[in-house]
Amino acid sequence: MREVAVLGIGQTKVDEHWDKSLRVLAGEAILAALQDAGLPGVEGLFVGNMMSGSANHQQHLGSYIADWVGLRYAEAVKIEAACGSGSFAFRAAVMAVASGELETAMAVGIEKMTDSPSSEITAELATASDADWEADQGLSFVAINALVMQRYLHEYHWQHDDFGAFSINAHANAVHNPCARFQEPITTNDYHRSPMIAEPINLLDASPIGDGAAAALIVPLEHLRHAKGKTVIRVAGSAAATDTIAVHSRREPLWLKAAEHSARQAYAQARVEPKDIDVFELHDAFTIMAVLSLESSGFAERGQGLRLALDGEISPRGRVPIATRGGLKARGHPVGATGMYQIVEVIQQLRQQAGGTQVEGARIGMTQNIGGSGSNIITHILRSD
Amino acid sequence: MREVAVLGIGQTKVDEHWDKSLRVLAGEAILAALQDAGLPGVEGLFVGNMMSGSANHQQHLGSYIADWVGLRYAEAVKIEAACGSGSFAFRAAVMAVASGELETAMAVGIEKMTDSPSSEITAELATASDADWEADQGLSFVAINALVMQRYLHEYHWQHDDFGAFSINAHANAVHNPCARFQEPITTNDYHRSPMIAEPINLLDASPIGDGAAAALIVPLEHLRHAKGKTVIRVAGSAAATDTIAVHSRREPLWLKAAEHSARQAYAQARVEPKDIDVFELHDAFTIMAVLSLESSGFAERGQGLRLALDGEISPRGRVPIATRGGLKARGHPVGATGMYQIVEVIQQLRQQAGGTQVEGARIGMTQNIGGSGSNIITHILRSD
Repeated sequence: MREVAVLGIGQTKVDEHWDKSLRVLAGEAILAALQDAGLPGVEGLFVGNMMSGSANHQQHLGSYIADWVGLRYAEAVKIEAACGSGSFAFRAAVMAVASGELETAMAVGIEKMTDSPSSEITAELATASDADWEADQGLSFVAINALVMQRYLHEYHWQHDDFGAFSINAHANAVHNPCARFQEPITTNDYHRSPMIAEPINLLDASPIGDGAAAALIVPLEHLRHAKGKTVIRVAGSAAATDTIAVHSRREPLWLKAAEHSARQAYAQARVEPKDIDVFELHDAFTIMAVLSLESSGFAERGQGLRLALDGEISPRGRVPIATRGGLKARGHPVGATGMYQIVEVIQQLRQQAGGTQVEGARIGMTQNIGGSGSNIITHILRSD
Repeated sequence: MREVAVLGIGQTKVDEHWDKSLRVLAGEAILAALQDAGLPGVEGLFVGNMMSGSANHQQHLGSYIADWVGLRYAEAVKIEAACGSGSFAFRAAVMAVASGELETAMAVGIEKMTDSPSSEITAELATASDADWEADQGLSFVAINALVMQRYLHEYHWQHDDFGAFSINAHANAVHNPCARFQEPITTNDYHRSPMIAEPINLLDASPIGDGAAAALIVPLEHLRHAKGKTVIRVAGSAAATDTIAVHSRREPLWLKAAEHSARQAYAQARVEPKDIDVFELHDAFTIMAVLSLESSGFAERGQGLRLALDGEISPRGRVPIATRGGLKARGHPVGATGMYQIVEVIQQLRQQAGGTQVEGARIGMTQNIGGSGSNIITHILRSD
């Protein structure tokens, strides 16, 4: 298997893009990545998206987007793993180039959610859970996460207010990211007074939906051996693992087995340990998921993920910088695009182009994207050589 | 890139499976393929499906099905390319094993369509076309194909009745396939008197929808070098190409550029020509698509694909046997599963297990799966060594 690298990246702002269709948004990210890479096109396009069939009445995004951006006759396909779709599109592109089938591949994550009524979006997000045993019983996706968070508070004796440190860090970082949906800081008081959505998850525990697209262009590493003036970003680790789709089937609902498995594989491939990771873009769809991701991936002991946040270790100057460009919480969570935003943001860090939230001297970055309530987790490790 | 082979296959009957959920159906095909291969599990699962999010309110089929069949912690994802989803799942599995990322991978195609009202299914099928420029203008998917067929009749001066030979062949073959949805022969008269759906497409030009699942298990070829008593089926060619999503954007609406491109690549990889293909499972969603597929893939001159059918060359004893197990027309077309049925059926032929429609001495088989109205075409060549 040959090694692969990322040659170009592109993204749109996460926003309510009322004036842009699905293809226009995806096209903007793709064309920006092509321009960044200095290439006119690619041989294959891998589109990460969750809900275009229902929310936008448009399936077949591979052909639809390849057509729009002028990739005539290129291979193109859509990849879906609920909120993990973006990272899985990246992984599919990595495998296509690693296998030798393609010499150039584009991964793009795209989701357009704000055109649909929020009741419909809530129902569509619930299709990430078990239709028979969760959604049809009246559990929304936020309700499932609320049950997990409630259990965490009970097991480990933290206070709800302790979780605020995650949201405050995310919003503080997003101030410096022009592509973030919310670019304003929040305070401890804002968090404390935030309205309840599904107890104990309040509005500032939850990430906002949005419209957006982010893309990365992948080539064989050997093509870049002699590239001058470019920071070569190598895909050092790529792994995915599943867990039961329904949370109730898990022996330990507070431990993300799929995070443990995929992170462990990615660490082995990259020959690194958690302590070597300079920046970690994790899946803070809800604050509880940030905590579980840190613990299950080896950055904190069971029940102690919160401690990292309370001690300031998750800031860009801390030991485990997370959500450095705002995370799902403040950059926004256009579900099928999120995994690709994580990739793009880690690459900005490794290129030392992350502006006001640059992690000094970042060389090794990790992304972790979660589909469903921990049932599909994709981990990538990127490094600059 | 290492070579890969198919070690096991499984399928369900295409039918109205009112008593089986999406996971039960997919599980039956997967467990049959595992049993056929003699393996207890696989490392990765690639699920081809088009419309589960809207028709079954269940996305995230990778995790959902991996969970059900006991593939705990395996990698799993859904692949969507409209009606080409099944073959693209197979191609994704092939690339995962070829790249060295996985040692065993399962591709499964699954679709469950008969639970939904037919008006909804018609709207969902239209999401394979261009939402803005085709579907929203009132064109159903059959209407798009009708326009193409009308143009073909006009350009090449055939009579509508000439197309009947395709449907008659498909139904005659399905009599011998216990997994086919319709196992009765039809006559020239049946075809002639068949009710019109969208002129000139009549009921017997069109394939029926259905519920079904088909699966294949892929391993590195080197693992089978010493396999005894098994026919080793090698994946000799695998390629995909796109064309414009809207038919009106094509310079030549009667020529499937994506078929030409993907077939040409697959022939080159397998080092064969059309004349070497012993059996060709093509995408006869409508009779016109069978004709265009034959012509664009190099089996007939422009405007002459019908001649092969009228001369009896498409039967199991002819020069270019197609739809040998019933094709989409009579085996049925559960859209996201169809590509995997084609793979399974070609492997039955190469194993000399196709019963009453066995193509004598078949060694090289080809499948061609079409997403949308020719906008995404995936071609595979399989051979027994």
